[in-house]
Parts: sequence; C-alpha cells; structure tokens
Amino acid sequence: MSLLLFVALLGYHIASRINQSVVVGEILVGLIIGPSLLNLITYTNFVELLARVGAVILLFVIGLEFRFENIYKVKYFIIALAGVILPWLGGYALAQYYLFDYKTSIFIGTALTATSIAITANVLREMGKLKTEAAEAIIGAAVIDDILGLLALAVSNQLVLGEVSLAADLLILAKAVLYIVAGAWVGQKLIRQYIQHMDEKTLAKRYPETTFIFAMTVAFLYSMLAESVGLSAIIGAFLAGTSLSGMRLVHSKSFYEGAEYLYIIFASIFFVSLGILVDIHRVEYGTIGFLLALTVVAIVTKVTGCYLASRAQGISNHDSLVIGFGMSPRGEVAMIVGLIGLTSGIITQSIYVTIIFMSLITTVITPIILQKWLYRHRD
Amino acid sequence: MSLLLFVALLGYHIASRINQSVVVGEILVGLIIGPSLLNLITYTNFVELLARVGAVILLFVIGLEFRFENIYKVKYFIIALAGVILPWLGGYALAQYYLFDYKTSIFIGTALTATSIAITANVLREMGKLKTEAAEAIIGAAVIDDILGLLALAVSNQLVLGEVSLAADLLILAKAVLYIVAGAWVGQKLIRQYIQHMDEKTLAKRYPETTFIFAMTVAFLYSMLAESVGLSAIIGAFLAGTSLSGMRLVHSKSFYEGAEYLYIIFASIFFVSLGILVDIHRVEYGTIGFLLALTVVAIVTKVTGCYLASRAQGISNHDSLVIGFGMSPRGEVAMIVGLIGLTSGIITQSIYVTIIFMSLITTVITPIILQKWLYRHRD
Repeated sequence: MSLLLFVALLGYHIASRINQSVVVGEILVGLIIGPSLLNLITYTNFVELLARVGAVILLFVIGLEFRFENIYKVKYFIIALAGVILPWLGGYALAQYYLFDYKTSIFIGTALTATSIAITANVLREMGKLKTEAAEAIIGAAVIDDILGLLALAVSNQLVLGEVSLAADLLILAKAVLYIVAGAWVGQKLIRQYIQHMDEKTLAKRYPETTFIFAMTVAFLYSMLAESVGLSAIIGAFLAGTSLSGMRLVHSKSFYEGAEYLYIIFASIFFVSLGILVDIHRVEYGTIGFLLALTVVAIVTKVTGCYLASRAQGISNHDSLVIGFGMSPRGEVAMIVGLIGLTSGIITQSIYVTIIFMSLITTVITPIILQKWLYRHRD
Repeated sequence: MSLLLFVALLGYHIASRINQSVVVGEILVGLIIGPSLLNLITYTNFVELLARVGAVILLFVIGLEFRFENIYKVKYFIIALAGVILPWLGGYALAQYYLFDYKTSIFIGTALTATSIAITANVLREMGKLKTEAAEAIIGAAVIDDILGLLALAVSNQLVLGEVSLAADLLILAKAVLYIVAGAWVGQKLIRQYIQHMDEKTLAKRYPETTFIFAMTVAFLYSMLAESVGLSAIIGAFLAGTSLSGMRLVHSKSFYEGAEYLYIIFASIFFVSLGILVDIHRVEYGTIGFLLALTVVAIVTKVTGCYLASRAQGISNHDSLVIGFGMSPRGEVAMIVGLIGLTSGIITQSIYVTIIFMSLITTVITPIILQKWLYRHRD
C-alpha cells in the first residue's frame, strides 16, 4: 500500500513535469513499476481490491456533482445508442475481414460497445469542465450505454449459442432499468430524507461522523446491487452519488469533504493499478496488426457514432467531439466481456489479450486527446 | 465492505442506546454478525486487510496529536518495565499452578507482557482525555512495552530452545531502538522539512492533495518498517503520526482533516473486525476455568505493576489507575505471541485459543472500565 501511494505521488511529479493530466502520470508510473518494465509489483488480489474500492469512490464523488434529472434525457439515450451500434458493426466487420469465425466476430463487436467513464469523468473534473453540457451528455450516455452493453452481451451470448430468447433479453433489460429507476427513487426520496433526519434529529448531534459512514455505506451498497443485476459497480456508485448531491447538513461532518479525501487516496491507487494491469510481454508479435486495427476501429466508430448523434441533436461541433472522444475509453467493461468470452471458450487467449490492450489504449489515449487537443485553447 | 460499514453504523446506534463508548458498540455488533452468533460474515482475508489498514490509520491519527518529546520519558520506561515483569511472573506462576510444563508456562507468561494501545487511545480520544498526563504516560509506556515484549518473546524462545544468546537479544533490542530513534529523527527533521517545502514551493501549489498522499505514504511506510524489525505495525504508524504533528500548511489540503476522514471509515471497520474475530464456539468447556483465571491474572498484574510504578513516580492515585487499566488490553500483540507458540509446537491449540480469548476480554473490558468507572464523575 505504501508502495502504491508512493508511486501515485511520483505520478503527480511526472504529470507536473510533462504537463499532462495526473491520470496519465499515474498510469505511466503504474506501467513502469508493473510487470511491463520493472516488475516491482504485480496485479495481486490486494491491488485489485484497492482498485475496485477506488473505482467505486471515484464514481461516487463524480456522482455527487450531478443531479439525477440533468443526466437522464432522451437525447443522451440516442447518443448512447449510436455509440453502441456503430462500434458493434465496426468490430464485427473488422473481425470478419481478419477471417475470424462468426462467434468470435460477434464477441469482438460486443467488446467494442462498452464505455467506461471513470477516466473521462476524472479528466473533465481535473480541468474543471464537469459542469458543462458535454460532461452531462457523456455521463448520461455512458450510464445508458452500460445498460445497452449488458443487453448486447446477452444477445451475443444467445446468438453464439444459437437460441435467441426475447423473453430472457427483456428480463435482463427490465432488471437493469428497474434497478436504475428504483435506485434513483429510493435515493432521491428515502435516503435523502433519512440523512436529513439523521443530521437534524438523531445520531449526528452526538456523533457528527455518522452521516459520512452512512453515505459511504450507501455508495458500496448501490455498487453491490448494480453488480447483482449485471451492471457495473461504478454505475451503482454514480447513482448513489447523484442521489446525495447538493444536500445541506447542519450538525454533521460533511460527507462531501470526506468522500473527497477518500477519493484522493483511492482514485490514485485505481489509476496506478490500470498501469500495473498491463503486461506488455503478453502481446504476441503476430497480433499487433490486428490490435492496432481494432483500436483504431474502436475509437473511430465510437467517435463517429456519438459525434453524429450529438450534432443531430444540435450540440456544437466542439462539444460533439468532446462527447465522442469522451465516450471512447472501454475500461474494465470491455475486459469483463473479454473474460466471459474466454471462460466460455468462444474466443482464444490471444484475442482476449488483444481486447484487453485495445481497452487499455482507448483508456490511456483519451485524457491526452481531451487535454492536449480539445481543451487546449479554452482555458 | 458495505456490510461492514452498515454494521459499524449500527454500532453507533447501539453505543448511543446503551450509553457506552462507540468502540464497545462496534465490537458488540461485530460479535453479533460474526461466527459467534449470526455467522453473516467471517474473518476473511478481505476483512483482515481492511482491519490492518484501519489499525494503521487509527494509530497514525492518534500520533498526530502528540509530540515525540512529550512521550519518551524515563518514568514511562519504568512504568512499562513494571507492566512487563509482573504479568510475566503472574502468567508463569499461574501456568505452573495449572501444572503446565516449563516451556508452555514461559510462553503463557510472555503472552501476558504485551500491551495494545489501539483501544485505550481511541476511548480516551472519544472522551477528550488524550491531552492528559495519564494518556501520555499510557502511550509512551505502551511504545516501550512493545520493544520489551519483543525482547521477552526472543528470550522466551531461547529459554525454550535451551540456548540463551545474549548477542542475539542485544541485536534485536538494538534494531528496535535504532528504528525508533532513526524513525523519529528522519521524521522530525527530513520529512517535516520536505512536507514544508512541498507545501510552499513545489507540487502542492498545483495539486493541493499531494501532501495528504505523501503523509499517508509515510504512515504506511513506517508501519512496514516497524514490522520488518519485529515491532508491531501500529507502533510505526504512531511514530509517523508524532513526526507530522502540529504542522502549519499554507497551500495544501490539510492532511490532518484527510486522515481524520479515513479514520472515521477504517477505524470503525477495525473495531467491528475485533468482534468478528471472536468465535465463541471455539472455547472448550474444560478450559473455561483456566481462561478466567488467566484473564484475571492478566488484568491484576498489569494494573498492579503499572499502578505501583506510576505512584512511585508521584502520579496521582486516579491517574495511576487510569494508566494501569489503560495498559491492560493485550490486543493483537498477545495473539501474535500465541500464534508463534502454536506454529513452533510449544503450546497446544487449546492454549492458543485461551490466549486469544484472554486477549479479547482484556481488550473489550477496558473501555467499559475507563468510561463507566474511572471517568464517570469527572465530566
């Protein structure tokens, strides 16, 4: 743990030297100390555990800066849809071009549908751009994307098995939507009220730290429930955050401040762990061409899909580009799809590694594009 | 994790109902949900990991409230010494009375020498009594106690093996003392200066969160180093805390506040885990008599030793009692001694369980005695 934190600190130094986002600095030092280069640390259960806690806290803190009603709009749904369909088609076509079989191609397409907003949200936050329409669109669309991706995975599985079941798909969709709706409702109504009550009437007067403990409990509980319906944990954490945003507490220690401090430690560990996760030695020489092609297709299709859908809804050219690139990181969601494909024997180890690396490259490239190119002249 | 936090929250509720320290409430709910009663959660690696992080953060925060020079005084050394010798003799004598063999008796004596201040320090902090002379004496003596306990363990091991080596003992002592002295010096001089420099000149202006990350890195690094010389991790964390206490920072986010928030979450988990650790079903019926006798001897000898030594140095009657009872919890230190005895085949499983429970009872009883009896009429 001290090594991880020390490395995170080095990441700040490097980021400040090369004038990049802290996220890039931290992934970079993760790469350097990880199995790719120095092999000082490997991705053990301990690191994974801390990284998962970090991702939950990260999205909870991001969620705290949003109100539920600003995020869930029909136009963001359309952006998400375009950002799922185009990458799926692109991935499928590319895999067919490389002469992979039908089942593998479907899985590769599915792996490209995912979006992980942890990186994008953090970079926008660091630059103070979280309160913009582009940020709202990215985050709103990414949440919907997670539901659509879940559905795409289910359908792919059924296509591969040869038995498409509309009923099963509807059930999955219903569970995910129900989770979001019920979670938002419970959060907005019951949990907010309970915290308010706690703050004014009961425990917080004597123990001002209880509301903070309660808020973190809610964050982890929502994450757990999200995973249990098949969504990613970070979507749950984000939903918990939006539920608790903008509250005024009298007697309590501020859980906003508390979550912020947890975030400083654990989000750093999360970003370092992304670098540690990579082991460059695992890329086979023969697959580099396919890996690069897949990565290009992953970015181009996502950017094109989201850009066009955004433009069509009257969003400005610049913001549409931000949305497109902001939706590009595949993050841990594509890795999970890859893992399912691998363990069910549909894709080979070599394709699995390719998916992991595609996901990592899209994730690492995004902060650089956002910061160096899209927001360069706008500070 | 959400279950643990939820349970910690319940602990607050219970503590507030029964008008006890939060620590007692949290150990209690840990007992209830642990294997002793409901068996909802067991002491897995995950829980252990979080609990260890919690103990480190706990002692770091406690350390932040002390200055090194107020703690390390000769009179506290004498209190610690009396609090090691009497329990050792008492444990040895009791074991002989129960007709255990020579080796077992020596180990039982050694298990009684330990002191774990996590509980006491937290209870005193909760009651706002950390800035008293009694608290300083307890904490100063407990740190010295940890060194003496380490030495007692080494000597016991040698007695059991039949080859006492003065050179080896001196080496152990020298390493422990060197660690404390060097750690304090580096902390007071180099690390404080570096943080000051960081805050004013370099990174903190751009990233105000870096000093907080750095402070936590120091805490975990000191803990790791303490373990590597045979001391307990919490002694290292405490030393790191005293090194960084009372700094004024200009540009940085306060790491005092940050550590405080981490403490709220992780110290709660630590106390809950103490309850989960207990499995009442493991106590054998035949050993209950010995367990009770051992616990009484553990408390009486520690209280008597520390009380007399304190009185002899002119500390008031009330404060001497607080010191005696405050030094009584054996905590994880006795458990480690027990584990070493068990794995080296010197003590039986049944004696090991007895030591664990003795340690737990002394730990759970302390906050009740301190709060209900010694500080009752003094608020």
